[in-house]
Amino acid sequence: MMSPDATDEDIARVVARVESVGGEANVSKGVVRTIIGLVGDIDSFHHLNLRTLPGVADVHRISDPYKLVSRQHHHDRSTVWVGRPGRQVPIGPETVTFIAGPCAVESPQQTLEAAQMARSAGATILRGGAYKPRTSPYAFQGLGVKGLEILADVREATGLPIVTEVVDARDVGVVAEYADMLQIGTRNMANFGLLQAAGESGRPVLLKRGMTATIEEWLMAAEYIAQRGNLDIVLCERGIRTFEPATRNTLDISAVPIVQAASHLPVIVDPSHAAGRKDLVVPLSRAAIAVGADGVIVDVHPQPEVALCDGPQALEGAELRELAQAVRRLPALVGRVAAQAPMPAV
Amino acid sequence: MMSPDATDEDIARVVARVESVGGEANVSKGVVRTIIGLVGDIDSFHHLNLRTLPGVADVHRISDPYKLVSRQHHHDRSTVWVGRPGRQVPIGPETVTFIAGPCAVESPQQTLEAAQMARSAGATILRGGAYKPRTSPYAFQGLGVKGLEILADVREATGLPIVTEVVDARDVGVVAEYADMLQIGTRNMANFGLLQAAGESGRPVLLKRGMTATIEEWLMAAEYIAQRGNLDIVLCERGIRTFEPATRNTLDISAVPIVQAASHLPVIVDPSHAAGRKDLVVPLSRAAIAVGADGVIVDVHPQPEVALCDGPQALEGAELRELAQAVRRLPALVGRVAAQAPMPAV
Amino acid sequence: MMSPDATDEDIARVVARVESVGGEANVSKGVVRTIIGLVGDIDSFHHLNLRTLPGVADVHRISDPYKLVSRQHHHDRSTVWVGRPGRQVPIGPETVTFIAGPCAVESPQQTLEAAQMARSAGATILRGGAYKPRTSPYAFQGLGVKGLEILADVREATGLPIVTEVVDARDVGVVAEYADMLQIGTRNMANFGLLQAAGESGRPVLLKRGMTATIEEWLMAAEYIAQRGNLDIVLCERGIRTFEPATRNTLDISAVPIVQAASHLPVIVDPSHAAGRKDLVVPLSRAAIAVGADGVIVDVHPQPEVALCDGPQALEGAELRELAQAVRRLPALVGRVAAQAPMPAV
Amino acid sequence: MMSPDATDEDIARVVARVESVGGEANVSKGVVRTIIGLVGDIDSFHHLNLRTLPGVADVHRISDPYKLVSRQHHHDRSTVWVGRPGRQVPIGPETVTFIAGPCAVESPQQTLEAAQMARSAGATILRGGAYKPRTSPYAFQGLGVKGLEILADVREATGLPIVTEVVDARDVGVVAEYADMLQIGTRNMANFGLLQAAGESGRPVLLKRGMTATIEEWLMAAEYIAQRGNLDIVLCERGIRTFEPATRNTLDISAVPIVQAASHLPVIVDPSHAAGRKDLVVPLSRAAIAVGADGVIVDVHPQPEVALCDGPQALEGAELRELAQAVRRLPALVGRVAAQAPMPAV
Repeated sequence: MMSPDATDEDIARVVARVESVGGEANVSKGVVRTIIGLVGDIDSFHHLNLRTLPGVADVHRISDPYKLVSRQHHHDRSTVWVGRPGRQVPIGPETVTFIAGPCAVESPQQTLEAAQMARSAGATILRGGAYKPRTSPYAFQGLGVKGLEILADVREATGLPIVTEVVDARDVGVVAEYADMLQIGTRNMANFGLLQAAGESGRPVLLKRGMTATIEEWLMAAEYIAQRGNLDIVLCERGIRTFEPATRNTLDISAVPIVQAASHLPVIVDPSHAAGRKDLVVPLSRAAIAVGADGVIVDVHPQPEVALCDGPQALEGAELRELAQAVRRLPALVGRVAAQAPMPAV
Repeated sequence: MMSPDATDEDIARVVARVESVGGEANVSKGVVRTIIGLVGDIDSFHHLNLRTLPGVADVHRISDPYKLVSRQHHHDRSTVWVGRPGRQVPIGPETVTFIAGPCAVESPQQTLEAAQMARSAGATILRGGAYKPRTSPYAFQGLGVKGLEILADVREATGLPIVTEVVDARDVGVVAEYADMLQIGTRNMANFGLLQAAGESGRPVLLKRGMTATIEEWLMAAEYIAQRGNLDIVLCERGIRTFEPATRNTLDISAVPIVQAASHLPVIVDPSHAAGRKDLVVPLSRAAIAVGADGVIVDVHPQPEVALCDGPQALEGAELRELAQAVRRLPALVGRVAAQAPMPAV
Repeated sequence: MMSPDATDEDIARVVARVESVGGEANVSKGVVRTIIGLVGDIDSFHHLNLRTLPGVADVHRISDPYKLVSRQHHHDRSTVWVGRPGRQVPIGPETVTFIAGPCAVESPQQTLEAAQMARSAGATILRGGAYKPRTSPYAFQGLGVKGLEILADVREATGLPIVTEVVDARDVGVVAEYADMLQIGTRNMANFGLLQAAGESGRPVLLKRGMTATIEEWLMAAEYIAQRGNLDIVLCERGIRTFEPATRNTLDISAVPIVQAASHLPVIVDPSHAAGRKDLVVPLSRAAIAVGADGVIVDVHPQPEVALCDGPQALEGAELRELAQAVRRLPALVGRVAAQAPMPAV
Repeated sequence: MMSPDATDEDIARVVARVESVGGEANVSKGVVRTIIGLVGDIDSFHHLNLRTLPGVADVHRISDPYKLVSRQHHHDRSTVWVGRPGRQVPIGPETVTFIAGPCAVESPQQTLEAAQMARSAGATILRGGAYKPRTSPYAFQGLGVKGLEILADVREATGLPIVTEVVDARDVGVVAEYADMLQIGTRNMANFGLLQAAGESGRPVLLKRGMTATIEEWLMAAEYIAQRGNLDIVLCERGIRTFEPATRNTLDISAVPIVQAASHLPVIVDPSHAAGRKDLVVPLSRAAIAVGADGVIVDVHPQPEVALCDGPQALEGAELRELAQAVRRLPALVGRVAAQAPMPAV
């Protein structure tokens, strides 16, 4: 968009700049100002710097900046499979996948109990953190490799595939060795080296939305993973930072249908970390399924009052049973079924 | 909370100030700093100005600032009845009330058609604006009293009670004469003169959340209405302003269970104005019912492409039928029924 | 902007719609999608509802929605004069105007003392609230007409013109009778009836930015006043709502040069209400003058510890002397002088 | 804070839990509810999970969560020295340090020219990016080690010490080998592995505020660096994400005095990345110096129109001269001098 006092030379200069990189520039002269529409390969437009040219008032990008994760050239929504061959659990448009487990792996006993709680409630994938990014350097930072080993043991015991967070590109190798799915957390959504390493890990990736990322930035982060050849990406809405203090973050429930319209990737919801309060987890899970999410991921803990991380949001007892019921009953209302691993052949 | 270098005199001065207005001050001396807990009537604490005293580091209010709308002394959730005696529609904890209609009243024909669409889809209250607050002084501002007359005629023709917005305290009288329920819009949530006038109007009030109001400020606005003797207040979550540009506002779905825990007042959801996009209205309405809202309010229009206000978010045709189905099927899942007016006695 | 799968008929329909209201539609066909540029009178485009047409992916407005307050057709920045003939104080591009006074008028004695403090510190306009919009209905709401009378008396005693807030369109008449300038507060920036009444009051208006209003919405609010024939408008940046809890609001210092580029109206800064903490008032006032603001407005109180409103942010003593020094010394650095009323002729 | 219906056993359970980790619990019984004040080592309180106990309504932390960077036990503000022995430039409370250079290192020629522009304008430290974190994987990602070599050559040629960004913990070693100061960018403020690696690098660190981080989270990130033995940390305010679209981010100018009150670390301002528009860089730099910042860091480029990164915000020509003048004249007004390296002994 040119400013009202742009001259003909200003316009010609813009057109020449666009054509110099192989683009096409369509000039619309108006009464007040002139608008120039650019057509061409967006990659070639990155360094045009049109805003620095005289007479240019503003520049608006019109087309999507992501490609591989866009639904534009990949119309059907994708299903991502998690777990070992023959026991894979789907996350995709036909199902509602329930993922549950403790925020942090604290001990073999606690992890096993949490996994059993999760499985009894209908979960088919186990979550649990061995590496914990914490705001305070004085808070519990996770058990590391020891935690990964515990998760692997619990997978053996329960049959549940495992998703666990990786917070450093240097750890992607070891985490991929143990885990069935890598989680990139909200603080690392724009840690591009980590995204690229996850893209080369050979594992499906659960990509949480940055707590202050726009949906477009989130899809661009997914594009970083996809660009390394890995399209097994599941997006996870987990709340955004707003002015409202009553919840830790504001769950952006609208992001689910918006992502599903823009991208073919599955998208699930984490109500536990969004709200930070366990009394909201069941109603928000119901809302997530009703809005059309491809799954939900929640914190459970056998003894929330001694949890080393996020105890106040972990479900147990009556609330977990209520959630289990919602996960059983609601998917049918949106034309889906609860996701299961296939029964092993006898 | 005192600062670490507060002296004994500083502490004594705070205690004396609190006691001078009849309050009680409990002093907790710690290793690093001292905390003083205030107990007493919060009204008497408004002008203490403790932050101005030497040695005071910070002041945190602990108890709720609202009283009449709080659930603390009024544990059972309230039901508000809308409409003329014998034909009243409930909004409350047992039901899901569906309110629909055009954003603006444009003509008798358009309003009647929209009302018939609304009723066919299961709506039992008609919405429609005669006074429209618009960001631009050059945009359509509504038909005023002429619009109120149209609404009254359409109520006669369809039997639907009417909720309509009032934007100026000087208009409360005339709007209350025609309407069954007054709406206070998002831009006027902190227009205290208007709130007080609505509190004296004798009509139930639909109080939309300010697009940048915290839940606490919203409940304080309701307290302004309640203080004038009117407890027939229904709250309406309609999206808050955030950094995300994909929706006009971000629907804060968590506000529904939070308000229901803090206040006895009913709370409904407006997905049309939150999203500003009609493709999100059906999924967000499903989410609202699933999260436990006491109702939903949506825009419908017989010809969205010629609407004078918010055409892009108005439902019609297939989408409205899909919404009607959701409103029929989902309430049972949360232990409710769709709200109806009682059948007239024969 | 058309969607990638828009048909030729879709495009023709948009063009026809635009032409039907006298506009011009320039079609730019690209490889992926078509962009249509609209040229014409923006008022005629308000009800086009292009987003409702098939094949339309998005609509971006390019030109400014305000006219009278825009700098586009009124290139020189304006000066607004406040006060009675012969004693008017300017607010404009040549000067830095210092406005000070108590948040609320509490008594004749307190107001007079605050005014004398303000004048001694270099202020040439007195602020003070007789009508106070408060979040809580239980907080002090101001003295009303009695407060206006006190302000008028203090003007007599000190010679300072008065700016005071009006919160209800019904009060504009009486406030305009007493005050030299009407203030529209942050909560009422989108109270369009009040804006229009102020536009007809015959007094200059100080229009505070809504705490969650974009700069464009703020200028649109000024347009409401201007449309009623009153261009004596001064804008006031007073902080916006963000996620940062350390200040009551976040002072958007960038808004000053942005407004000055977009509009001819003067713009001043209120650091007291932005920060809510008196220790920030002096540094933020220095920043405001250095960034190029046309003035600053601050709270002063003879006894902050007994103030009925916002005591914690009111200046006195050493801090006020420090501010006075900044107001004297900094304007020269940005090529301005401190604003004074002309000396009365002897 | 206990809920109003908490029982004596609930209170006793909280007290016992606090005492079990060596803390002290002071109980204040009020008319409506009981408040329990905790005193003790905050580290021992991390896993108390009081919110999970029956009768607990809310938990507020009162004391600061950071220690090493706090001003509480280190009252004097710190000066950080950047550069090789004998040629070090200070950043601290006595000076205003001017840092300038290109957003990205593109070529030896471009970097040298930008450095000469920077030095002529009064800059005493050179900025320039060899590793660029970009939202799009298709955008220019920097020259890497080749860029570091160019920076080292330009340091030789101009005598300016170098600050450059590191985006991956694996690169800290090589960047520390070439650079005089490591920059942690806004997207990596919560990349804890990177923070820790920077803490062990032996170089001073410039820590940009996360664009959506609170001031407290920012200081916690600094604490991660400090905990590894490195207290040579300079904080950099660079704008936060808000709803206002007129600037890329909203410069939070108030953060400067707030940080200076809470922490002994120096704090500078980056107006270029905050605004994203070069017309705001000079006024915002003036505001930064006037508010009391310990320095400013800006983008300059010999030919902004061909810059590979952020061309629209880079200064050159008249604007750079205007900035140079502000940097010369304004420090005296806040009792400072422009920071210089000591003259080499003859």
